[in-house]
Amino acid sequence: MPHDLPPLNTEFTLRYGAPVAPMADGNEVIASLLSHRSIRGYLGDALPEGTVELLVAAAQSAATSSNMQLWSVVAVEDPSTRAKLADLSGGQKHIAQAPLNLVWLVDLSRAERIGAAHGHDFPVLPYTETFMVGVIDAALAAQNAVVAAESLGLGTVYIGAMRNHPQAVAELLGLPAQVMAVFGLCVGYPDPAQPTQVRPRLPQSVVLHRERYSTAGEAEAIASYEQRFANYQKAEGLPASGWLSRVIDRLGTIRSMSGRDKMRGALAALGFKLD
Amino acid sequence: MPHDLPPLNTEFTLRYGAPVAPMADGNEVIASLLSHRSIRGYLGDALPEGTVELLVAAAQSAATSSNMQLWSVVAVEDPSTRAKLADLSGGQKHIAQAPLNLVWLVDLSRAERIGAAHGHDFPVLPYTETFMVGVIDAALAAQNAVVAAESLGLGTVYIGAMRNHPQAVAELLGLPAQVMAVFGLCVGYPDPAQPTQVRPRLPQSVVLHRERYSTAGEAEAIASYEQRFANYQKAEGLPASGWLSRVIDRLGTIRSMSGRDKMRGALAALGFKLD
Repeated sequence: MPHDLPPLNTEFTLRYGAPVAPMADGNEVIASLLSHRSIRGYLGDALPEGTVELLVAAAQSAATSSNMQLWSVVAVEDPSTRAKLADLSGGQKHIAQAPLNLVWLVDLSRAERIGAAHGHDFPVLPYTETFMVGVIDAALAAQNAVVAAESLGLGTVYIGAMRNHPQAVAELLGLPAQVMAVFGLCVGYPDPAQPTQVRPRLPQSVVLHRERYSTAGEAEAIASYEQRFANYQKAEGLPASGWLSRVIDRLGTIRSMSGRDKMRGALAALGFKLD
Repeated sequence: MPHDLPPLNTEFTLRYGAPVAPMADGNEVIASLLSHRSIRGYLGDALPEGTVELLVAAAQSAATSSNMQLWSVVAVEDPSTRAKLADLSGGQKHIAQAPLNLVWLVDLSRAERIGAAHGHDFPVLPYTETFMVGVIDAALAAQNAVVAAESLGLGTVYIGAMRNHPQAVAELLGLPAQVMAVFGLCVGYPDPAQPTQVRPRLPQSVVLHRERYSTAGEAEAIASYEQRFANYQKAEGLPASGWLSRVIDRLGTIRSMSGRDKMRGALAALGFKLD
C-alpha cells in the first residue's frame, strides 16, 4: 500500500509549525495519522450497520501481551446510558451527542473465569504488572479503532473522565470484579459547523531522545512551543493563555483531578490487588 | 482517503476464521490494520534517513490526555545498547537484530522540570492516576508509530520484557526519576525467509459487549477459539497445544513473570509514588 506523496509539508506544519527535521517520505496512512484531531461536536447521524464490528476487528488486530487479550470493550449506543456516562464524566455533552461510545476495559475477569473453568489458580493476576498489561492492551486496541474510525471519515475523542467515578461506571455497565473502564471513546460524524484544527504538539526534540535520555535544549524548545501554542489558541478564537498555564492548572491542584486522586482506593474496590 | 474495497474477506478470515459478523465496508487502512503481525525475524538493513522522525511525528499525533504529553521515547540504534537491551529482556535476539528499538517512556519528569522552572508545585504527579495517564499516553503514541511503520513496509514487535528489569533499563538509558520504560518496540525490515502468519484472536463476541458486560456464550466461544488456535499453531509448524495452555502457563506461576512481580517496588525505586 505505501506510495510516495509530496513530503507532507502541510501536515507537518500543522502538527509542529515549520521548520521540522528532515523526514523520510510518508504516505496516505501517515498523512491521515498526522491530521488527527479530537472531535467534540458531532452530528447525531447513525453509523452504518456493522461499524462497531469493523472498529473492534481493527482493535483486536493490535498487538496484545503474550496474546492474553486482557481487555474488553462495551459498545454503548443507548441514549439514556450515554447521558448517564456524560454525567459521570463531568458533563461532557459530546458523549450524549455522538451515537456511539466505546468504553475500553482492562479485563482480568475473563482470565479468572478461564482459570476457574479449567481448575487453575492464576497467582499472576493480583499484580501491578498484570494490571498494567491490561491497561496497555486496552490502549493499543483503542488506538487502532481510532485510526480505523478516522479512515472511515468518523471523528473520535477519548474520554479520560470515565475514570472520575470508576465504581459508578462499573455498576452502570455491569462490570464484574477485576474489570475497569480505562477510558471512553466517542465515535460519530463530525459536525461540519464546528471545525477543529490540528493541535500543535511539543517540538519533536523534546520527546524524542537519541540513544539516551537528554534534557539539552528542552527549556528553549518548550519556550518556542509556548509561543506557537498561543498562536494556535488565538487562531481557534480561544484566550491565548499558552500551554504552560494549562499544564499548571491541570497538575497544580488536586481539585483538577475530579476525583481521580481516589484511584487507588477505587481499584481496590473494583477487585484489583496491585501487589 | 477512504475508498471501498471488497469486504476484506481474506483479512477477516485470517484474524477470526469464518464466519464473522456482518461488517461495514472497510478500506485499505483497515485492511492494513487487520493484517498486523508481530515480526521477530529481521534483516539488518538500515532504515531510510528520517524514519525515526517520521514515526515519532505519527506518535505525537495520537491523542494525549489534556495535551499534557506525559511520555517520551528513546530511539536506540547503537548495536551495543541494543545487545544490552536484549539481555535485559530475556535474551530476545530480535532486539539486537532489528536496526532500531524505540523505548517508550511514561515521563512525569518533564512536568516536574516545568514546575520547578516556573515556580509551581505539582501535587498531582505522585498519584496512581497520573502514572496511568503516562502509560496510556505512551501506548497510544506507540500504536500510531506501529501503524505508520507497517504502512512503510516495516515490521515491529512490542517488547513487554523491557519491564523485567526497569531499574537497569533506566540506568542504561539515563532516565531521570519519574520516568520508566513502558515497553520497547523493534522496528526493521522483516526477513522474508521467516514469514509470519496473522495470529487469530478471540471471537469478537468474547471481547465486545453490547450496552452492558455479558458473559453469555463466552465458554462456547472460547472453546471454538481453542480449536482454531491449535489449527493455527499446526499451520505454523508449532506444537498444537492450544491457547488455554499458554494462558495457564503465563498466569499460573509467578516465575513466568520474569521479575515483573517486583514492579511495585521498582516503580517506587524509580520515583513514582502511586498514591
